Amino acid sequence: MVEDVERVEGGRLGEFDLIARYFAPLATEAAALGLRDDAAVLRPPEGQEIVLSCDTIVEGVHFLKDDPPGSIGHKALAVNLSDLAAKGARPYVYLLALSLPAGTAATWLEAFASGLGELQKLSGIGLVGGDTTATPGPLSVTVTALGLVPQGHAVLRLGAKQGDRLYVSGAIGDAYLGLRVLKHPALGRFWGFSDDDTAFVVDRYRRPKPRNDLALLVRNFAQAAIDVSDGLMGDIEKLARVSHGGALIEASRVPFSPAAQKALEREPALLEALVTAGDDYEIVAAVPEASARYFEAEALGKKLSVTMIGRVDGSSGEARLLGPDGNTVKLDAKGFSHF
Amino acid sequence: MVEDVERVEGGRLGEFDLIARYFAPLATEAAALGLRDDAAVLRPPEGQEIVLSCDTIVEGVHFLKDDPPGSIGHKALAVNLSDLAAKGARPYVYLLALSLPAGTAATWLEAFASGLGELQKLSGIGLVGGDTTATPGPLSVTVTALGLVPQGHAVLRLGAKQGDRLYVSGAIGDAYLGLRVLKHPALGRFWGFSDDDTAFVVDRYRRPKPRNDLALLVRNFAQAAIDVSDGLMGDIEKLARVSHGGALIEASRVPFSPAAQKALEREPALLEALVTAGDDYEIVAAVPEASARYFEAEALGKKLSVTMIGRVDGSSGEARLLGPDGNTVKLDAKGFSHF
Repeated sequence: MVEDVERVEGGRLGEFDLIARYFAPLATEAAALGLRDDAAVLRPPEGQEIVLSCDTIVEGVHFLKDDPPGSIGHKALAVNLSDLAAKGARPYVYLLALSLPAGTAATWLEAFASGLGELQKLSGIGLVGGDTTATPGPLSVTVTALGLVPQGHAVLRLGAKQGDRLYVSGAIGDAYLGLRVLKHPALGRFWGFSDDDTAFVVDRYRRPKPRNDLALLVRNFAQAAIDVSDGLMGDIEKLARVSHGGALIEASRVPFSPAAQKALEREPALLEALVTAGDDYEIVAAVPEASARYFEAEALGKKLSVTMIGRVDGSSGEARLLGPDGNTVKLDAKGFSHF
Repeated sequence: MVEDVERVEGGRLGEFDLIARYFAPLATEAAALGLRDDAAVLRPPEGQEIVLSCDTIVEGVHFLKDDPPGSIGHKALAVNLSDLAAKGARPYVYLLALSLPAGTAATWLEAFASGLGELQKLSGIGLVGGDTTATPGPLSVTVTALGLVPQGHAVLRLGAKQGDRLYVSGAIGDAYLGLRVLKHPALGRFWGFSDDDTAFVVDRYRRPKPRNDLALLVRNFAQAAIDVSDGLMGDIEKLARVSHGGALIEASRVPFSPAAQKALEREPALLEALVTAGDDYEIVAAVPEASARYFEAEALGKKLSVTMIGRVDGSSGEARLLGPDGNTVKLDAKGFSHF
């Protein structure tokens, strides 16, 4: 029995209706002009700078065709919120550019908008505009997010100093494991995963939690920061290189979830993949030794997980990983590259 | 003989190199942080509002696979600059999200960046950030453009009043003719086009000229405005509807280029397509009767072409086209819709 699903094609659901039905409810800011204009008009609060982030996610590249549409809406916004958090900025407004294949079901759009709306509400950001277009290719979503930060207080990649402690939020590598078990379910059994472990790592892949709660601490304590989207070691290397430093990371200090620990125990060689695969959307912050204990105390007070994993060290422009035996772990590639 | 073209694949040209080589030279604003960060940091001038526009162009939908890459770079920015002009805003900064199929040649990217750079220079806008990603689908470009307008002076779609004159910049329908002759070269001969006529209409399709020179006049004289991207009649209807009015347009007043006039003479039935097909990137402005002659005088003084084509009339929420015989021309569809 084929359901009579309303589809985005043949004029059955026009762009105007589509926007009015699914996206206008997300346009809670006055600047959005109710999404009935081609543009948004914004009056940023005085004394604030605007931080701009823009990331695209493409079906088959950044998410899977069968991922729940709500998680795709979530992810499109989350990857941008993560960039704002790394700059120490608070979420302000965003624009959504959606490229839809013909035949996208209205139910798909409804769930997509709902996932987007949930994260929007949680993070306090508002939709102010965008574009909806047809594509003969895969579904693709580009979000441009604007954040606010008091003038002169944005945290950049550049600025880490010799000896700074390097902290990472949350845990590393779960999204990689989630993607692997989605593609090869047997791996979960091999790694000794319970159903909860599997659900946990899949959720970490599909619905990364941007660390916006950490933004204020990053702003107050970090000299430099970056979000981990392309792999822990590769992103740390970007921060080190642009700061004219190097980095030394101790594998034994890298925080792993209980699920990742199970997998590592069964397959120790996974270590390299976990610290280079990306999609973590955690924050790495370079904090000077002198303020480290205040940073840790405030994070603890706010129940935010941060772990010291190494230091800015030398000027090699490289990030090195020290194994439990004290030797450098050879990494084939330090991060994900599209090209 | 196959040229040994450098391609975006297999790590031969990484994202970092690609950005450094082709796009960092376009990042002339300090806010761009040399494109070596995930985000840009902007300090908007005091007393200004920010106008935001975001448009995607997709290969096979908004441009043709064989269009010169420079014109694709031009178009991606132009369609957004056009939105800023319609709001009366001056170009400020933009972000570029590029989805590239594997195998995109380095020469393609070089020409793309060059076309983008030329229009950027002409319009005074600066690249501050963005994203580059691989896609299994068609090449696609999303630009988010920010413009500046003195507080409270942005011109919206909403705001046209009964009796306002409706002006349009430039000429209408050339881009449609350009697309048609690109697809069916024989049509040029049928319409009696010279080589220059053909080159002219093709250029209008590939390299629309955003009317940013008109922004100040729009801001000073228009109560409402819109850029014509989806078809003259459809876009006027959007303006009329959101302003709670109707619109009456006289076909005999609509400005056509000499090439379009030739085509119309040969094929009068083309009229409907020319006023509904879109891709014109001209500006429609609603100007009150009392200030119309000042608007016209200033446009004349600045050598900007504006033509009165009708009025805001009634409250039907519809845009009607009066033919040369005084009867309403029946239009099957008033504008282009993707869905």
